[in-house]
Amino acid sequence: MSAPLTRIHHVGVVVRNLEQAYGFWRDCLGLPVHKVATVEDQGVRAALLTVGDSEIELLEPLAPTSGIGKFLAKRGEGLHHLCYATADVAGALAAARAKNVRLIDEQPRPGLAGMICFLHPASAHGVLIEYAQPFPEDAHR
Amino acid sequence: MSAPLTRIHHVGVVVRNLEQAYGFWRDCLGLPVHKVATVEDQGVRAALLTVGDSEIELLEPLAPTSGIGKFLAKRGEGLHHLCYATADVAGALAAARAKNVRLIDEQPRPGLAGMICFLHPASAHGVLIEYAQPFPEDAHR
Repeated sequence: MSAPLTRIHHVGVVVRNLEQAYGFWRDCLGLPVHKVATVEDQGVRAALLTVGDSEIELLEPLAPTSGIGKFLAKRGEGLHHLCYATADVAGALAAARAKNVRLIDEQPRPGLAGMICFLHPASAHGVLIEYAQPFPEDAHR
Repeated sequence: MSAPLTRIHHVGVVVRNLEQAYGFWRDCLGLPVHKVATVEDQGVRAALLTVGDSEIELLEPLAPTSGIGKFLAKRGEGLHHLCYATADVAGALAAARAKNVRLIDEQPRPGLAGMICFLHPASAHGVLIEYAQPFPEDAHR
């Protein structure tokens, strides 16, 4: 593959409330919160916690009608998606397309983790997969 | 915390059939399979794929009555658990107990990833969490 996946960038976890979730993810597991951001167009408030050179991305829905809100209502809190880092998200996406992987995003778009795209879980054995090419200022992540 | 979690050791994914799953996880994502093992007492056949200094652990149930078999019947293929590496699994487990985290294993036990233990998802916002202290011969993992 022309654009290898170099590491697990983050694991996305849906939670009901970020502040409650810190009681476990930060205070029990000891993982530091290094960023909190609201992503209005995705209807989430997200907290990024560091572990090694990966992150845990806690996702709290802003509204029950958002994608994350619907996930929470249907499945409850829990594992949501798995994101791989790559130095060439467009190339990785093209490679997936060439292998007939069903895509959610036809083109990379800006996201919290950099330039990102999602593959469809129907092609990934039930797992929602994200590819991320970190922005240069976050290239250490 | 006396025993920090140093990285994501692996992400566990339940699949119906390992060989079918390779078509996506190995051939589309380009992740090499470095080990395949049958764990009779857990009723699974597992394949470990490398990405950076983490792994994807594909889990195929040996029987529908195993824990993984029941998960597959109830929830289908998908994300199953999240494992953190630590240099001191007994210390990490003791720290979780001291914070009143509900445990599945009261003591570390040998597993595929080394000496391991599981925390209960009821204390972890719906996520099944594993701690692993790799065996010395696998310490690069």
